[in-house]
Amino acid sequence: MSIRSLALAAAALAVAAGAHAQSAFQKPEDAVKYRQAAFTVMGAHFSRIGAMVQGRVPFDAKVAQDNAAIVVALSTLPWAGFTPETEKIKSRTKPEAWMEMDKVRAGADKMVKAVAELQAATRTGNLDAIKKTFGDAAATCKACHDAYRE
Amino acid sequence: MSIRSLALAAAALAVAAGAHAQSAFQKPEDAVKYRQAAFTVMGAHFSRIGAMVQGRVPFDAKVAQDNAAIVVALSTLPWAGFTPETEKIKSRTKPEAWMEMDKVRAGADKMVKAVAELQAATRTGNLDAIKKTFGDAAATCKACHDAYRE
Repeated sequence: MSIRSLALAAAALAVAAGAHAQSAFQKPEDAVKYRQAAFTVMGAHFSRIGAMVQGRVPFDAKVAQDNAAIVVALSTLPWAGFTPETEKIKSRTKPEAWMEMDKVRAGADKMVKAVAELQAATRTGNLDAIKKTFGDAAATCKACHDAYRE
Repeated sequence: MSIRSLALAAAALAVAAGAHAQSAFQKPEDAVKYRQAAFTVMGAHFSRIGAMVQGRVPFDAKVAQDNAAIVVALSTLPWAGFTPETEKIKSRTKPEAWMEMDKVRAGADKMVKAVAELQAATRTGNLDAIKKTFGDAAATCKACHDAYRE
């Protein structure tokens, strides 16, 4: 990971930490809805890069870059919604996630760094670099989904 | 509106336009889910500024600034989810919205500019300026909700 990507990831994390500092959700249901919404928006924009990487739509460097910017902006957000109070609320989150929240958070950090790398690649406009970093980022998503999502 | 705020709003709109350029949602239901998710995340962070403006939580300039950055990043996104194909899908969107989509888009533009003003105010750390611009931004939300949301 480049220094620049690390700096981007650190900056994004700092913003998210600040934004959530006083952020108690009013109800646990709000926290669940919030984290699911953040994943939905992030996933939609990540998929648009995926469509280009997989050749389903023509490659456009500007589109890749704009979508990566949104993914990065969203990447640090959902995690605040995994509050202890939400453990008993039905969702696709497996019980294992609550027993291993330190691993979930470590996985989240990997994802945040991986999408910062992807964003850096989109800024080069090099499709091979985008493919590589997209694949790496997708692998960080899949790791957590496989372990902790029903 | 300051030149800087206008520039911020224009930049945010440009990013969103690029990100959505090739973005046909696979199913109309995906577009509805996407726009609702974007509103949910935006609203959560807007509310956190509101809590400070209304004195429900202590004012923290950094927290206000970080939340405003997220609101601005989200502000341009939901509108792409109001595709013609989603008109027949049950949601809280009133039929009037589809008959007056030009007004909906004009309202969206006002909101995007208003939250850019709010973000600029949070960067000054001046609570009075934040209160003023928060109120203005909230009014742009309410205008569309009153007219087009059940």
